[in-house]
Amino acid sequence: MGDTIINVGVIGYGYWGPNVLRNFVGTEGAHVVGVCDIDKDNIKRALRIYPFLTHFTDYRDIIASKTIDAVAIVTPVSTHYKIAKAALENGKHVFVEKPFTANSKEAEALIALAEKKKLKIMVDHTFLFTGAVRKIKELIDENALGNLYYYDSTRVNMGLFQHDVNVIWDLAPHDFSIMDYVMQDKPIAVVAHGIDHFNNKLENVAYITMYFQKKMIAHFNVNWLSPVKIRMTCVGGSKKMLVWNDLEADEKIRVYDKGVNVHSKVGTYKMLFEYRSGDMWGPKIDYTEALKLETKYFIKCIITDRTPINDGYAGLRVVKMLEAAKKSLMNRGKPIRIQL
Amino acid sequence: MGDTIINVGVIGYGYWGPNVLRNFVGTEGAHVVGVCDIDKDNIKRALRIYPFLTHFTDYRDIIASKTIDAVAIVTPVSTHYKIAKAALENGKHVFVEKPFTANSKEAEALIALAEKKKLKIMVDHTFLFTGAVRKIKELIDENALGNLYYYDSTRVNMGLFQHDVNVIWDLAPHDFSIMDYVMQDKPIAVVAHGIDHFNNKLENVAYITMYFQKKMIAHFNVNWLSPVKIRMTCVGGSKKMLVWNDLEADEKIRVYDKGVNVHSKVGTYKMLFEYRSGDMWGPKIDYTEALKLETKYFIKCIITDRTPINDGYAGLRVVKMLEAAKKSLMNRGKPIRIQL
Amino acid sequence: MGDTIINVGVIGYGYWGPNVLRNFVGTEGAHVVGVCDIDKDNIKRALRIYPFLTHFTDYRDIIASKTIDAVAIVTPVSTHYKIAKAALENGKHVFVEKPFTANSKEAEALIALAEKKKLKIMVDHTFLFTGAVRKIKELIDENALGNLYYYDSTRVNMGLFQHDVNVIWDLAPHDFSIMDYVMQDKPIAVVAHGIDHFNNKLENVAYITMYFQKKMIAHFNVNWLSPVKIRMTCVGGSKKMLVWNDLEADEKIRVYDKGVNVHSKVGTYKMLFEYRSGDMWGPKIDYTEALKLETKYFIKCIITDRTPINDGYAGLRVVKMLEAAKKSLMNRGKPIRIQL
Amino acid sequence: MGDTIINVGVIGYGYWGPNVLRNFVGTEGAHVVGVCDIDKDNIKRALRIYPFLTHFTDYRDIIASKTIDAVAIVTPVSTHYKIAKAALENGKHVFVEKPFTANSKEAEALIALAEKKKLKIMVDHTFLFTGAVRKIKELIDENALGNLYYYDSTRVNMGLFQHDVNVIWDLAPHDFSIMDYVMQDKPIAVVAHGIDHFNNKLENVAYITMYFQKKMIAHFNVNWLSPVKIRMTCVGGSKKMLVWNDLEADEKIRVYDKGVNVHSKVGTYKMLFEYRSGDMWGPKIDYTEALKLETKYFIKCIITDRTPINDGYAGLRVVKMLEAAKKSLMNRGKPIRIQL
Repeated sequence: MGDTIINVGVIGYGYWGPNVLRNFVGTEGAHVVGVCDIDKDNIKRALRIYPFLTHFTDYRDIIASKTIDAVAIVTPVSTHYKIAKAALENGKHVFVEKPFTANSKEAEALIALAEKKKLKIMVDHTFLFTGAVRKIKELIDENALGNLYYYDSTRVNMGLFQHDVNVIWDLAPHDFSIMDYVMQDKPIAVVAHGIDHFNNKLENVAYITMYFQKKMIAHFNVNWLSPVKIRMTCVGGSKKMLVWNDLEADEKIRVYDKGVNVHSKVGTYKMLFEYRSGDMWGPKIDYTEALKLETKYFIKCIITDRTPINDGYAGLRVVKMLEAAKKSLMNRGKPIRIQL
Repeated sequence: MGDTIINVGVIGYGYWGPNVLRNFVGTEGAHVVGVCDIDKDNIKRALRIYPFLTHFTDYRDIIASKTIDAVAIVTPVSTHYKIAKAALENGKHVFVEKPFTANSKEAEALIALAEKKKLKIMVDHTFLFTGAVRKIKELIDENALGNLYYYDSTRVNMGLFQHDVNVIWDLAPHDFSIMDYVMQDKPIAVVAHGIDHFNNKLENVAYITMYFQKKMIAHFNVNWLSPVKIRMTCVGGSKKMLVWNDLEADEKIRVYDKGVNVHSKVGTYKMLFEYRSGDMWGPKIDYTEALKLETKYFIKCIITDRTPINDGYAGLRVVKMLEAAKKSLMNRGKPIRIQL
Repeated sequence: MGDTIINVGVIGYGYWGPNVLRNFVGTEGAHVVGVCDIDKDNIKRALRIYPFLTHFTDYRDIIASKTIDAVAIVTPVSTHYKIAKAALENGKHVFVEKPFTANSKEAEALIALAEKKKLKIMVDHTFLFTGAVRKIKELIDENALGNLYYYDSTRVNMGLFQHDVNVIWDLAPHDFSIMDYVMQDKPIAVVAHGIDHFNNKLENVAYITMYFQKKMIAHFNVNWLSPVKIRMTCVGGSKKMLVWNDLEADEKIRVYDKGVNVHSKVGTYKMLFEYRSGDMWGPKIDYTEALKLETKYFIKCIITDRTPINDGYAGLRVVKMLEAAKKSLMNRGKPIRIQL
Repeated sequence: MGDTIINVGVIGYGYWGPNVLRNFVGTEGAHVVGVCDIDKDNIKRALRIYPFLTHFTDYRDIIASKTIDAVAIVTPVSTHYKIAKAALENGKHVFVEKPFTANSKEAEALIALAEKKKLKIMVDHTFLFTGAVRKIKELIDENALGNLYYYDSTRVNMGLFQHDVNVIWDLAPHDFSIMDYVMQDKPIAVVAHGIDHFNNKLENVAYITMYFQKKMIAHFNVNWLSPVKIRMTCVGGSKKMLVWNDLEADEKIRVYDKGVNVHSKVGTYKMLFEYRSGDMWGPKIDYTEALKLETKYFIKCIITDRTPINDGYAGLRVVKMLEAAKKSLMNRGKPIRIQL
């Protein structure tokens, strides 16, 4: 990658923005030149640590800056489209917070624009860069689990209620993007049930089920009203089964040599179920900060003209799942077909 | 209760029968006189420990016995109706394994018969007699949790596949009976999603959601293919929230002073969400064997002519939920209305 | 082992006796013919389950019984010597509760007597028969851990205070017998610190350290006053390290590919420490009831004239460690040399 | 505290220095003006984040700086004395890493010098500022636990071997300073056992026991060779017992209403032990970063001329315990008397 330097501007310095900015500052090949936030207090916080930054309160100004090659958009989802569009039109590569956009139409338009302009879009599906998710991907890719039976995820805590999105749009993008990444098969239908306790039309407890072409099922439990924090995903396969407990300090992933061997009894319609219970194995995983790897990868994709795993299409697939979940919720749990 | 002795016969000495028999043997006021099983090896196992028992291989013979006042029916669900009917017709009180019957019609017929004959039916919803469930009931009854927001239960493990029922009929009766017992409100609609991986028409992974008149939701995650065992129920309320982890050796129940205080901002449509995070509390719970309390209670209900909390109607409500779940499963997750 | 039947008598039916009796009842080749306890209520409890047993209140009577080949002595430690001596003199094999005897002199006398009479002594070091300890033994025997660095055990809970022995004599025999079994090397010195809070001369909190010829250390934390129950042993080796958490339902043993590689820097006195952190592995272990395997093994050792792993010498080594710990306690933590 | 600004210089920017610097940067009333490290790479790392800092490679230069009021000394323990002495002689307040000094003589000399110069010494016993330790202090101060029976601490992990100090000097200062802070009673004798596996004269596994005037015992298990990380302290008292598990994300502290009630039986020498097992309680604790509170408190103590809880004397007491432990180790576990 030699001497090429990508000049980066960060738009949005609220909750997650500081992490994005800090990581771009630490990324070789990246040079952060500016920060933008409509809230001057946020700007002040940024300058306290990075006094050398040019700063803006209007995103149009930072996007107009000639010295910037790429922008990181770390703003509420409803603003992603207009900011990303403006950035792409101004020739900037775009790193955008998840979920990619507020609907699939916006996502498709941005993808088309980026392709036309030969620019990169990377959606910040940070979890794909954790050691845990990379290990799960690796295990599934080498068929260590066998045929997949189910993907069951629980992501609950006492949540920061969002004022503009429900619990699905807040928490499920993590899980949808992870499942989309690690599994070859894509869901064909989405069902969602949920409830809004405070009459604000924003569900705070929800359950999403996904169906597949194959005999596979996925389920997601998301909840902003849980007294305890749980971050657990279980992937069951015909050969092995995997539990990812993201709150474990070490050994986040455990692979179980457990399962069922099914035999058809010759000459009868009966089946014999035989249990298999062997060793457990906790593969070593890498604990490098995921966002650090992701910002580095973004710069590398730009310099080497490579399509990121978390490109606009990946972002679009997640948005389609979210849209389908919303539609199912509004139709009392009706299964909504999707095509990914 | 003085000197009255209830003579008990136990029908079925397979997996759970030995526990029922052992507890009736240890119950004051009960006298176990006979055991019945179609499998002679099971009879042999019973006699090794209780050589004094009269034994039978045909349930009709033990039911015909003049010396027996009550029978415990610990056989597969498909046989409950015919055995219980015969027992009631012969004037025996009935203690019957859960789920009560294979459908609600059978349950209703048994209830009617028992009422006509002035006999007791008790359905073995064992969990209602655990210290944990009694404590949850107590907390909800005294309104310690406030208005209930959700009831979320996970009961998964590498399961003993049943040959005649799916994972819902196997595992969910526990949770349905517990929820039915601890909560005043009853569900009005049931949705179920699930999957059968081995082409035997018996789902081994399933998710059930229940809707209520009030802003409440219930959800049940049952799975026979999980590499890890989880037995966890979370009940969220407006005042406090409760987590019951049945696999904890001590402190199975934790009550959290956590929640959300919602204020409507005067003069606007906006709401303010304020988090509350206080102490956690692990109430002491009683660890007496549940089945021991239950068999004692059965004898007491007979002697004092009292209606058990887990009577035929409780059994019927659980069967209705199971039936609705089955119907929803067969209709691709269609919500099925129920009246309890 | 053919048709030989060993007739067994059980002396002591208090806390642990019922387990011993139940397991001998279930052991092929054993026939339990009698039970003895000075407390008639205990006898009554036994007869309720095993009405066919001959019963005694004086141990001399059961020992005099011609029909008995072997006795299980499940009485307080202070009585072991006199009962075992009488039993051996009457030609009975002896299964005796741990700790073997109240002092090493008694243990040596019993061993000599048994050898003279060609009878078996087995000390009930039950833990040696658990799947966990057998797996640890196996791993150490095949040198999977490399050179052992330390053996660190914690066994604490809110305890049943014993009226005749301190916390070391109550809890540490488990750990001493396990360590003695799994490790080739034997301690050469014992140090103990402890405290008696209730002026009854019986320590309820104690810490024991053992030194070895090699660069190894062992440490035992035993406590009757802990609000939480902990049963954890860690064995560190040059190749791998092992944690045994006996309270885990599954995966009681975890083997860690972690350690330190030490290099001497050439030409200097400096050392380089290099960390190694690899996978974790939870070997499948057998969950058969330990006491069941042990009673079966006792019968087998008698019939096949085999020396048990937990013979009188094993019992003696544990008693010597206990004696040394007591002596160290009385001498303010002075290291006491032992020869095992 | 008005407008007074304390100008701070940070000496040492290795492992812990960056945290100290970052927190002083964020402390109101503090102004960090310079950083010093003998390693230029460390300086470079600091300047990347704080480009405005004056930097030094010789501690004498930063100490000579007229614009500096206070220094934070975050260097190896062997250098604390000479740097702190120079700083105090130059009229600087001193914030110094734990352990305070390499021996008690040095500590006493620094205390005397600071008193003469009317300057503050604060020893970085960071844990005293955690919500957990403050809560424990509060509970003990209000006598919630009753008379203390024992203080039992385990601090083990796969450690960063230090090249100049053993595991006691590395890990135990945390626990010694915490115990010193929360408990009124002070130890009167220290015993230590340990082992050095790599012939470098630096123990990597050690056990320390402390005796008190009252019927109290303290024990510390420190280990650099543990495959798992444990950070657990148990404090047993006559009224209640407390477990602090620092690795729990929430509910780090649990208070158990468990214990033993002892009655002397009238007219006899016998005692009756009665168990008490009540509720468990997890008090809410504050999760503010401890170092943030500590740096703020340092500035406040300077401005308001207040003696810190973690002053030179507190540092000295910890050094005396460490010295005694070392002496005991060198004398094969001989109890070493101390006066605090």
